[in-house]
Amino acid sequence: MGNCHDCFYGGPKNTNVRLSLPVVCFVWEIAMIVLFGIFVRYDEETDAHWSEFKIKHNISSNIENDFYYRYPSFQDVHVMIFVGFGFLMTFLKRYSFGGVGFNFLIAAFGLQWALLMQGWFHSLDHETGKILIGVENIINADFCCAGTLIAYGAILGKVSPVQLLVVTLFGVTLYAVEEFIILSVLHCRDAGGSMVIHAFGGYYGLAISWILYRPNLHRSSRLHGSVYHSDVFAMIGTLFLWMFWPSFNSAIANHGDGQHRAAINTYLSLAACVLTAVAISSMSQKTGKLDMVHIQNATLAGGVAMGTSAEFMISPYGSLIVGFFCGIISTCGFIVVTPFLEKYLKIQDTCGIHNLHAVPGMLGGFIGAIVAATATESVYGKQGLIDTLGLTGNFAGRSPGTQGGYQAAGTCVAIVFGLVGGAIVGLILKLPIWGDAADDNCFDDEVYWEVPEEEESIPPVLEYNNHMTHKNQDLCESNFSVEQI
Amino acid sequence: MGNCHDCFYGGPKNTNVRLSLPVVCFVWEIAMIVLFGIFVRYDEETDAHWSEFKIKHNISSNIENDFYYRYPSFQDVHVMIFVGFGFLMTFLKRYSFGGVGFNFLIAAFGLQWALLMQGWFHSLDHETGKILIGVENIINADFCCAGTLIAYGAILGKVSPVQLLVVTLFGVTLYAVEEFIILSVLHCRDAGGSMVIHAFGGYYGLAISWILYRPNLHRSSRLHGSVYHSDVFAMIGTLFLWMFWPSFNSAIANHGDGQHRAAINTYLSLAACVLTAVAISSMSQKTGKLDMVHIQNATLAGGVAMGTSAEFMISPYGSLIVGFFCGIISTCGFIVVTPFLEKYLKIQDTCGIHNLHAVPGMLGGFIGAIVAATATESVYGKQGLIDTLGLTGNFAGRSPGTQGGYQAAGTCVAIVFGLVGGAIVGLILKLPIWGDAADDNCFDDEVYWEVPEEEESIPPVLEYNNHMTHKNQDLCESNFSVEQI
Amino acid sequence: MGNCHDCFYGGPKNTNVRLSLPVVCFVWEIAMIVLFGIFVRYDEETDAHWSEFKIKHNISSNIENDFYYRYPSFQDVHVMIFVGFGFLMTFLKRYSFGGVGFNFLIAAFGLQWALLMQGWFHSLDHETGKILIGVENIINADFCCAGTLIAYGAILGKVSPVQLLVVTLFGVTLYAVEEFIILSVLHCRDAGGSMVIHAFGGYYGLAISWILYRPNLHRSSRLHGSVYHSDVFAMIGTLFLWMFWPSFNSAIANHGDGQHRAAINTYLSLAACVLTAVAISSMSQKTGKLDMVHIQNATLAGGVAMGTSAEFMISPYGSLIVGFFCGIISTCGFIVVTPFLEKYLKIQDTCGIHNLHAVPGMLGGFIGAIVAATATESVYGKQGLIDTLGLTGNFAGRSPGTQGGYQAAGTCVAIVFGLVGGAIVGLILKLPIWGDAADDNCFDDEVYWEVPEEEESIPPVLEYNNHMTHKNQDLCESNFSVEQI
Repeated sequence: MGNCHDCFYGGPKNTNVRLSLPVVCFVWEIAMIVLFGIFVRYDEETDAHWSEFKIKHNISSNIENDFYYRYPSFQDVHVMIFVGFGFLMTFLKRYSFGGVGFNFLIAAFGLQWALLMQGWFHSLDHETGKILIGVENIINADFCCAGTLIAYGAILGKVSPVQLLVVTLFGVTLYAVEEFIILSVLHCRDAGGSMVIHAFGGYYGLAISWILYRPNLHRSSRLHGSVYHSDVFAMIGTLFLWMFWPSFNSAIANHGDGQHRAAINTYLSLAACVLTAVAISSMSQKTGKLDMVHIQNATLAGGVAMGTSAEFMISPYGSLIVGFFCGIISTCGFIVVTPFLEKYLKIQDTCGIHNLHAVPGMLGGFIGAIVAATATESVYGKQGLIDTLGLTGNFAGRSPGTQGGYQAAGTCVAIVFGLVGGAIVGLILKLPIWGDAADDNCFDDEVYWEVPEEEESIPPVLEYNNHMTHKNQDLCESNFSVEQI
Repeated sequence: MGNCHDCFYGGPKNTNVRLSLPVVCFVWEIAMIVLFGIFVRYDEETDAHWSEFKIKHNISSNIENDFYYRYPSFQDVHVMIFVGFGFLMTFLKRYSFGGVGFNFLIAAFGLQWALLMQGWFHSLDHETGKILIGVENIINADFCCAGTLIAYGAILGKVSPVQLLVVTLFGVTLYAVEEFIILSVLHCRDAGGSMVIHAFGGYYGLAISWILYRPNLHRSSRLHGSVYHSDVFAMIGTLFLWMFWPSFNSAIANHGDGQHRAAINTYLSLAACVLTAVAISSMSQKTGKLDMVHIQNATLAGGVAMGTSAEFMISPYGSLIVGFFCGIISTCGFIVVTPFLEKYLKIQDTCGIHNLHAVPGMLGGFIGAIVAATATESVYGKQGLIDTLGLTGNFAGRSPGTQGGYQAAGTCVAIVFGLVGGAIVGLILKLPIWGDAADDNCFDDEVYWEVPEEEESIPPVLEYNNHMTHKNQDLCESNFSVEQI
Repeated sequence: MGNCHDCFYGGPKNTNVRLSLPVVCFVWEIAMIVLFGIFVRYDEETDAHWSEFKIKHNISSNIENDFYYRYPSFQDVHVMIFVGFGFLMTFLKRYSFGGVGFNFLIAAFGLQWALLMQGWFHSLDHETGKILIGVENIINADFCCAGTLIAYGAILGKVSPVQLLVVTLFGVTLYAVEEFIILSVLHCRDAGGSMVIHAFGGYYGLAISWILYRPNLHRSSRLHGSVYHSDVFAMIGTLFLWMFWPSFNSAIANHGDGQHRAAINTYLSLAACVLTAVAISSMSQKTGKLDMVHIQNATLAGGVAMGTSAEFMISPYGSLIVGFFCGIISTCGFIVVTPFLEKYLKIQDTCGIHNLHAVPGMLGGFIGAIVAATATESVYGKQGLIDTLGLTGNFAGRSPGTQGGYQAAGTCVAIVFGLVGGAIVGLILKLPIWGDAADDNCFDDEVYWEVPEEEESIPPVLEYNNHMTHKNQDLCESNFSVEQI
């Protein structure tokens, strides 16, 4: 079978990842073990000394352990990262293995590096020099991976797994730095990461894709689309992202009303977004038919855009308004902007992350700035305003208006980090050592995966097909192995 | 390809939803924003004033926020609504997009209207005239959508998305009214909604389907069945419903033992139900083979039937008995009653909701009545009885026996609302303005979705198929585009 | 169609489960109802007397009910049992119904028996003679089923559902006994069940498969493999197992830091495991391509091996080391050991449970022994050491070193129970009364399921296929029904 198959696809496809992929994985994992050995320890709520800590800090019950506040949300976020992002990328007819499999690989790779990078910036115990980790850290590590997985959406099908590991290594590093600047230096609030995750990740991916532009990508056009069941698989990803987005935006919000409000605002925004995405999708086709690409993606824009303001008092109708406009903007992006980007700006964006992450993330950042700037004590209460905007310590005197300005500045920082970082990483990926596929083998799992043969998937009908296949063998000059039939 | 395709399916299929679907979505969503702006605000546990509320009400910890009692259950319910119901309806060979996609649309549409309708009846702050929402409201909104999604099961593949939005609009409205009568006026207990969700939703859908009877539906019989992988997709829906049903029945039960007991009773009932559903399915076939329709549906009847009594002291073996009989009744319904309904009562019930929701829901209502009527202080404890049956305030003097009578009456109210409401909505849907598919285009995603072409899904084999296709082109007088091959 | 189909598959396939399967299901379920009626009641936290219990025991809040500590983890475990194990076994091209469907049946069957068996050993109220159940019991019941579902992996596709019910009946019984010996008599710690679940279940399945060796299994080799989309379905199982494994290992760990630490250790181990599994998979192929079998299975070995030590202070880098080596060992197992076992030891292990459960489980047991033996008060704190190793009551004086010895002994007990128990159960399954499939019908859903016909799954292309099919009918001497086309 192999011979025949190759004749259709233009010869051997050995991309030589056999050496580079294992080497990178092993070297990396060993480095992680060493660095974790030096730096990473359990925090007080995770350590077996917790029973003493409880007594010392007069904590009355085990249920006050942060685990019980955040672990259910963590699991939802975890599902979004691995099943949500993973299955959303199975929509291509012959790149489902790569979509879900490489997503799995790079998220598992990225979260370890994220624990270290974010730990050095945020969770370092300055007395001992150790990074102390607990449930909030693993949520943040998952968030950090999300930035890179978004970028993967733009280059899906066009890069090798080794390149993806490089994208992840730099993506996590850049993320940790921009997050430090935005959250710690500028002291922005961004519980659900409109800025630090989506705007950064979106522009990071677009910049990489711009540098890696393939003028002859049309040679893979036979594989650049979905089939019926691959679209249904992608809906698994869409729905798990959509359903668990309230957990995403509330996972690291303040205990109590903060988490509660973030979940409800996101729930509402996402619901509104579905209706306008459907409306625009139907309007865009001559016959009013819906396009699965829009349903799979644009319905999620409402969650992205609520990332910053979900924990604010944006009010229920405010959430609906955000979802309303983001559904429209995102769907129009798929219809108008993605083809424009490809044609005029030479940006090939496989999953349309421009419309789902980059633009809604940027909008979410600015919406958050406006909502923060207009916050008042009458709406939030005196303590509520301080808690929600985090105006304590060095930032105790900052007014809501000033906070809004900093939020807007933070959004710009995220975009700049994405664009500049992505361009640099793109140039690194241009080096001819990474084993990426040829232009006519993009979007093809055969390049990096052992793909099962299909002849016998549907026994009775295929018996006929095989009979016919024999008759037509001369067309292919192949030497079919039929002994298993 | 289009030309050829049309010649198989009898000409153009423009159902003119291009105007009506976007208009309905936009008008509706704008109405929602206006109404939310006028009416909907955060409740005390969601508002930023929570820190003051805590002090005023002497609440010691953020973990006492209702969010932590109910949010994990909410997320499970959310998965049931969107992935559970959605994927359960992907079983048809060419209506998987419609199954999961329209389910997504109408649930997102319905939950907003449900927040308003249920809010006016249940959560209105009479001082300010505002609806105050929190996590319990969004669980209830999801529940309310479930009623309509059940009805969708009966008419799956036979109605347009615009009709579905009408079904949802009226379904949510009817639901809110019958729920008010059953829970507030009659003061029934129905934590998992055997009555208010399943009996109502089931009979609502059956009545609609009865009015919309299509005598020539057999013209779509080529599409009225599953294929191998569509049945596997449907199992995703089945399993997420089955697994999370304990959360469904316990989500809004009383804090503490109420939620705990509801989850365990449902867990047991569902387990028993699987065994009897399998047994009857095997017995019903000459060769003892199992039928996927039964496994996908009848295994869930035990959860439906425990909706009312899950929070009662039905005892573990009582739960098993409920599951035991519901598995039998539901499977027999699929084998005997569904064909009978179609042949003699002219009710075409695509998913068999009669057997999964209508009958088990009704039974669940009456089981709840019996269990409530036989409740005693020795079994529940004095306070336990009051809490579990909700015999406080105006209802403090009601005896368990009387409560049982009201529970039975509540079940009848739900059924009457379903049947009468469904008949009226069915008549509205008969108006020739909704863009429903012709009899020979039912169960076909091509009518409302851009469906990907399939020729190249399996490259090597398909090359042969394409060769053969060329030879046979004259059969179709088509003009295949082959340039991308 | 039936006639034609049979001619390919060698005549009728009635395996006579039509009598045995329903009889076993009914008899069993009735027995369960009787036994539950005699023995099973709600525990204090599930019973309506909880409000009195709270006052008596000075419990300040409903949130202290064990439900809120464990229910989110229970739901994650529940997903692993039904979707995780179920979908992991859908990878075969024509045994997806059997994979997910029989998994569903036997888990629902097993959990009821597990509640009784484990209840008699662990939760018996000696005053009343009743088993008192709550959320921890249903988690343990799910765990107990996991042992049998692992065994199912070895015999997937080769046994009848009746045989599976026998495997489950004995598997749950053996599990309860070995669990009692390991946890209660030897007083081992095994929160995530490396020993009691994975080592036991793995060797139990291998022993059964060894006894049931089929020398002519190659006759089914046409069905012994995956197709493209069945591999994607299997990834659903893999990912839900992988994502929720932190909940699995922490579900019944100690409240507070115990659950917290177990989750984080498992999270880290699994992440490391993915990288080394990918590395070895790529190295094992001439062209560096990845093998889906490894990605679907070996990536999970890190969770299995952390089952015992997840709640210990193994430290974050210790967790990474465990994952690192288990990913290597498991992948090498798939490449080297599984073929060896089949060729030389006559063990046909369909899913490779040797590499995913038996060996990592055994390793996990010994790793736990080492970690326990090296525990010190300085690392755990005085109270932390007592709590984590459970050195209270009769075991208060036991040193960590001694505890380590007992842990190692416990691992051996689990393996012996698996091997001996499996061999005995295998012999019982050899009786010619169970309706198992012939050697040439293994891995074929047609034997036990009504499988939908496939001809029309893809309308336009299939029209051509049907035309061609007609031409070729003589090849089959069939009488195709074409009236529905």
